[in-house]
Amino acid sequence: MTKPITEDAITKLYCSKYPEEIAIADLGCSSGPSTFFLVSELLKVVDSLRQKIGQKSPEYQVFLNDLPGSDFNTIFRSLSIFQNKLRKQLGPGNGPCFFTGVPGSFYGRLFRKNSLHFVHSSYSLHWLSQVPQGLESNKRNIYMASTSPPDVLKAYYVQFQKDFSLFLKCRSEELVDGGRMVLTLIGRRSDDPSSKECCYVWELLAMALSDMLVEGLIEEEKLNSFNIPMYTPSPAEVKYEVVKEGSFNIDRLKVTEANLNAYQDETDLSDAFKDGGYNVAKCIRAVAEPLLASHFGEGILDAVFRRYREIISDRVSKETNVNVTVSLIKA
Amino acid sequence: MTKPITEDAITKLYCSKYPEEIAIADLGCSSGPSTFFLVSELLKVVDSLRQKIGQKSPEYQVFLNDLPGSDFNTIFRSLSIFQNKLRKQLGPGNGPCFFTGVPGSFYGRLFRKNSLHFVHSSYSLHWLSQVPQGLESNKRNIYMASTSPPDVLKAYYVQFQKDFSLFLKCRSEELVDGGRMVLTLIGRRSDDPSSKECCYVWELLAMALSDMLVEGLIEEEKLNSFNIPMYTPSPAEVKYEVVKEGSFNIDRLKVTEANLNAYQDETDLSDAFKDGGYNVAKCIRAVAEPLLASHFGEGILDAVFRRYREIISDRVSKETNVNVTVSLIKA
Repeated sequence: MTKPITEDAITKLYCSKYPEEIAIADLGCSSGPSTFFLVSELLKVVDSLRQKIGQKSPEYQVFLNDLPGSDFNTIFRSLSIFQNKLRKQLGPGNGPCFFTGVPGSFYGRLFRKNSLHFVHSSYSLHWLSQVPQGLESNKRNIYMASTSPPDVLKAYYVQFQKDFSLFLKCRSEELVDGGRMVLTLIGRRSDDPSSKECCYVWELLAMALSDMLVEGLIEEEKLNSFNIPMYTPSPAEVKYEVVKEGSFNIDRLKVTEANLNAYQDETDLSDAFKDGGYNVAKCIRAVAEPLLASHFGEGILDAVFRRYREIISDRVSKETNVNVTVSLIKA
Repeated sequence: MTKPITEDAITKLYCSKYPEEIAIADLGCSSGPSTFFLVSELLKVVDSLRQKIGQKSPEYQVFLNDLPGSDFNTIFRSLSIFQNKLRKQLGPGNGPCFFTGVPGSFYGRLFRKNSLHFVHSSYSLHWLSQVPQGLESNKRNIYMASTSPPDVLKAYYVQFQKDFSLFLKCRSEELVDGGRMVLTLIGRRSDDPSSKECCYVWELLAMALSDMLVEGLIEEEKLNSFNIPMYTPSPAEVKYEVVKEGSFNIDRLKVTEANLNAYQDETDLSDAFKDGGYNVAKCIRAVAEPLLASHFGEGILDAVFRRYREIISDRVSKETNVNVTVSLIKA
């Protein structure tokens, strides 16, 4: 889990200077039950520390960022309930916490120079700014796969390097010196970018799409030109970009595993929910549906995921995500 | 018009220090075609000044504030079109402009200490934080009226003083020293708070509601307990609060008139649009509809405003709003 690393980073940030204000940005915050989770955890850590040493609470500024099409209205309308809850959890004397929504891509500047103390991004940075150029030879694959030619693997890696490096540069301008950043990406342990651990679920989705091509339900050209705009880096690749970009020192770099099939250890759920394939398919559907819908049209979605679930339940009983988490300090 | 005062204030702010960054807050920005108008005007002024003196452009941070129920999604989704347009208008070399949405009431802190350089609020601050307490004797009036007893006028004024003073205190904490604020409220010239210039349109709406009471379409208790939560101050009352609160010096204080009936000078419009009553009724409906709907229910709206239009067209051919604009400097 990444929680200890985040706690460690905010603890070190707070205890290095006992700042009177802390500006926190959550990049790719999404709009759902977990939107406020990070903020809540960070503020609890700081509040507990400042109470122990009898320090006055800092003021907090929280920037919640996501793409302009995200549902900020829902976030903003649930804010007062969250704030009341948080106030009770933190007890008396905690400083005010000001929330703002920041629409925009984090592959560009989002904040003023030297205006942030802590940046967090979870499960967002493996998404590339665009589908890499030069994937024509990836044909019936939809992501890097064991059958992808070397130029496809290279095109994906080059796009990741470009995006991740730009991300680091933008954030280094926005963070104060000594500011901290904790990033969690879906990644891989292996040096091979087409390793099964990160690519297999997509190879199986490609199989479902190929079946539909054979049945004449989708067009060949459409399938050939569909590729998922993500990159699941190894810890070494993350480290290499950080060192090359040069604005940050690495405090911690850790690989963990998170269960894709969140229900499998529960005992009181129906058989449908205990079916690993069902849950993995559900999880991948949540992620891939908008991409598939915009490329192939919404009409194919149910058929694709019915096939996908059948394919995956034969092959995947327990699928995990490899998470790469890096904790950085602005040099 | 208030544009020259705003231009004057941002010019003085910029030319006093040629700051490298300017944080602007628009309080009560609303969500519509005019949301970005202020920002656009301010940035054009600064950009023209910095070009004249050959200064590098500052970076801008813009905070767009409104209540949490406002439609921030629409604002955020139209942002990139606005930004592209602005970039072209300003020409090369203009600094980046970062937009954030800030949900919350401006009758409370919204920003970190000393984090703003320029605050603007237009047509929002005459809205009180709540309906004043102690309006029981205001019976069939719905706002201050010529027949309101003195304790009603006092209750309204006390609430305005409390709200406006709290607003000034919050903003003084958030603005840097020398920071500026331009506020435009609907107000009045007269010393009499129940003066016709600010209250007559509401007296006529009360007449429409009284007609409906007589016809048994609304309940007496409902009408007696309905009051509009606004206050239209005189320039002297605005000045008095600013001086009493003590955080700001007044640079300029001006009373202007704006036409409520925006269409009346147009020549190529249909008769319906040239009917002054029609336009004033439309304008008041836009403002009063949510208040009436939540108090009386949506069912009465069409009937109320049909009556209101008839009443108003007999009496009002050319109605103007009195605007009070004050330009302040944090002392």
